Amino acid sequence: MPRPIITLTTDFGTRSSYVAQMKGVILALAPETTLVDLTHEIAPQNIRQAALFLRDATPHFSPGTVHVAVIDPGVGTARQIICAELAGQCYLAPDNGVLSLLARESPPSRLIAVTNPRYWRATVSNTFHGRDIFAPVAAQLSLGLPPTALGETINSLETLAWPEPLCAATQIAGEIIDIDSFGNLISNIHHDQIAQHLRLTAGDACEVLLGGSVIGGLSRTYGERRAGSLVAICGSGGYLEVAIVGGSAASILGVTVGAPIRITRSKTG
Amino acid sequence: MPRPIITLTTDFGTRSSYVAQMKGVILALAPETTLVDLTHEIAPQNIRQAALFLRDATPHFSPGTVHVAVIDPGVGTARQIICAELAGQCYLAPDNGVLSLLARESPPSRLIAVTNPRYWRATVSNTFHGRDIFAPVAAQLSLGLPPTALGETINSLETLAWPEPLCAATQIAGEIIDIDSFGNLISNIHHDQIAQHLRLTAGDACEVLLGGSVIGGLSRTYGERRAGSLVAICGSGGYLEVAIVGGSAASILGVTVGAPIRITRSKTG
Amino acid sequence: MPRPIITLTTDFGTRSSYVAQMKGVILALAPETTLVDLTHEIAPQNIRQAALFLRDATPHFSPGTVHVAVIDPGVGTARQIICAELAGQCYLAPDNGVLSLLARESPPSRLIAVTNPRYWRATVSNTFHGRDIFAPVAAQLSLGLPPTALGETINSLETLAWPEPLCAATQIAGEIIDIDSFGNLISNIHHDQIAQHLRLTAGDACEVLLGGSVIGGLSRTYGERRAGSLVAICGSGGYLEVAIVGGSAASILGVTVGAPIRITRSKTG
Repeated sequence: MPRPIITLTTDFGTRSSYVAQMKGVILALAPETTLVDLTHEIAPQNIRQAALFLRDATPHFSPGTVHVAVIDPGVGTARQIICAELAGQCYLAPDNGVLSLLARESPPSRLIAVTNPRYWRATVSNTFHGRDIFAPVAAQLSLGLPPTALGETINSLETLAWPEPLCAATQIAGEIIDIDSFGNLISNIHHDQIAQHLRLTAGDACEVLLGGSVIGGLSRTYGERRAGSLVAICGSGGYLEVAIVGGSAASILGVTVGAPIRITRSKTG
Repeated sequence: MPRPIITLTTDFGTRSSYVAQMKGVILALAPETTLVDLTHEIAPQNIRQAALFLRDATPHFSPGTVHVAVIDPGVGTARQIICAELAGQCYLAPDNGVLSLLARESPPSRLIAVTNPRYWRATVSNTFHGRDIFAPVAAQLSLGLPPTALGETINSLETLAWPEPLCAATQIAGEIIDIDSFGNLISNIHHDQIAQHLRLTAGDACEVLLGGSVIGGLSRTYGERRAGSLVAICGSGGYLEVAIVGGSAASILGVTVGAPIRITRSKTG
Repeated sequence: MPRPIITLTTDFGTRSSYVAQMKGVILALAPETTLVDLTHEIAPQNIRQAALFLRDATPHFSPGTVHVAVIDPGVGTARQIICAELAGQCYLAPDNGVLSLLARESPPSRLIAVTNPRYWRATVSNTFHGRDIFAPVAAQLSLGLPPTALGETINSLETLAWPEPLCAATQIAGEIIDIDSFGNLISNIHHDQIAQHLRLTAGDACEVLLGGSVIGGLSRTYGERRAGSLVAICGSGGYLEVAIVGGSAASILGVTVGAPIRITRSKTG
């Protein structure tokens, strides 16, 4: 039997000791479990950014993985902690919408409200459930505890208000929803929507409008244009993005999350 | 028998290759050992910050863990390297005070000066004992080498000058000693001191003074007040801290480490 | 048999989900493999910085380790992916010069062009070969797949233009090639060149010139001068570097990568 895996996704950074405390609690209970840092660089309390991150990263792991996500501005208030089974993997997170993008793509097969203190640390602080509830519960799950031991089954998750692109016959209007570490500007317009509504594929004539710039055509790769060129591309997650070859589109265009972006089929296309 | 664990705490960052070099040396000697990054983001040569980090993080690990702390401005000078046994765990660090906060809470059961070059790399640089002494020694400890093989027993550790709060019958005066990744301002005033001297508990009338602001009362959680509110709270480590709901108190108050903070029992309390 | 090891070196940062996606793909195929983060903080698309990092860090690992380096501005273009065997270790990287400093010190015993899609993910994006080619191939290598299964043997690697110091009888002229996380300025002048050409050893009279400053003599450690002193030292990798005791030489001198540095034997030496 392979060693169980627990992944960690937080907005704690690593300058503070919060992540290290969680690792100590987990490994003290489950020393054979493989701990995997996904990120601790979610912007403080940015639930939407964390929801995107989890949607993009966690489906690549195998069934049986336990994913712990602590982006939890409501810690200690009435918000619940949830254990969700999705596509054979197990997610532990506050019920604040952070799992809702994942759940849109793969509906949970089970949702449990984590209410049974039996698997928590003996003393639970009001401000750090990551250490006192999430960590020991994740350790027990990785050792084989069934999620049903954690509390009662519930029927629904909190959802995030999520911007959907507007799709018409010749144009799709969306917005920038994320900026990656290269400064690439990632939109909410999916390749499938482009294919279905505009009937465009790479090489077809089209225009992408963002922040006052007009980009002609979709590129296939970053490196096929010369340095400094603005390119529009359907990225590795399937979403339309705008990049500058060898530079940061976010810095150079001065565009940020929420900016409108449009893709239009060219008349002569 | 569970796999041994070595944790790493440094001020090296991960942009340079120093941490990666240490990982190579450790895993070449002890490939079955679990390596755990605690932090590499201690501010350069900030022994006090590292001492706090180790005090808060490492007690959550289980007995037998080997903790390596390399915050070592005196590398290559007369400062000693120490192997300390505390609460069943093993710490390897320069003897510059970095272990002294831990040692106040749990006196070491043994202190060894690491002087026996037998377990070091064959060539030891003057500027990187992390790679040439700490890493190979930690690997051997994780494989079962008794600390007594490393050198002679010594009697005492270097200590840090450490600010203690002044406790009176109606007021405690302390200072800010750390700022976490959310910008929360953490003081040296412990909940037990508040309970003992002021006989205050959450909900009792009191005032916290910091950086020209007055905060009425202690909160139980960050999320129980509305966004932008200044709150005082006894945090997950038991220390009084000041936070802004949904923001960074450090940025907004312009307060930094060393700032005075006071908590006073209200006259009508 | 010890557990196999895969290391990761990228310019992805950890704020984006790219590294996390790679970890998921690797662990889904090879759950018993130990994953080691070397760095994800290479400056975006900085092949030279990555080449230095790999040269300094990876030789400390043991034979059989699989090193994955994804600094890949040409992803999706004609650049090849290479599997190189060097000193018994296995490297997977784009053929863009990132392995060329390693290869100068230890010529590869085998070079394979990674062209056989059998070990890739079923669908390969044009923009993220790290996830779709490097990750699954590294997982298979860690499970024992022979590199020859990946494609045809080739004869040479891409090389980087690399600045060599000019060595004369009384002076060596080089340049700053890296800045570490302490702000230490690291040159391309090796200790062996200093010993051979200038016949200098620590303590001998010499002068180091950098950014308008003149530093007299080579120090043995950072800590032997008082705080604020400028020191020249042969660092843990053997290269001449300039540091400020307790501070950042890069910030205070305003010097950056590419700056000229000279070391001269003093007349009276």
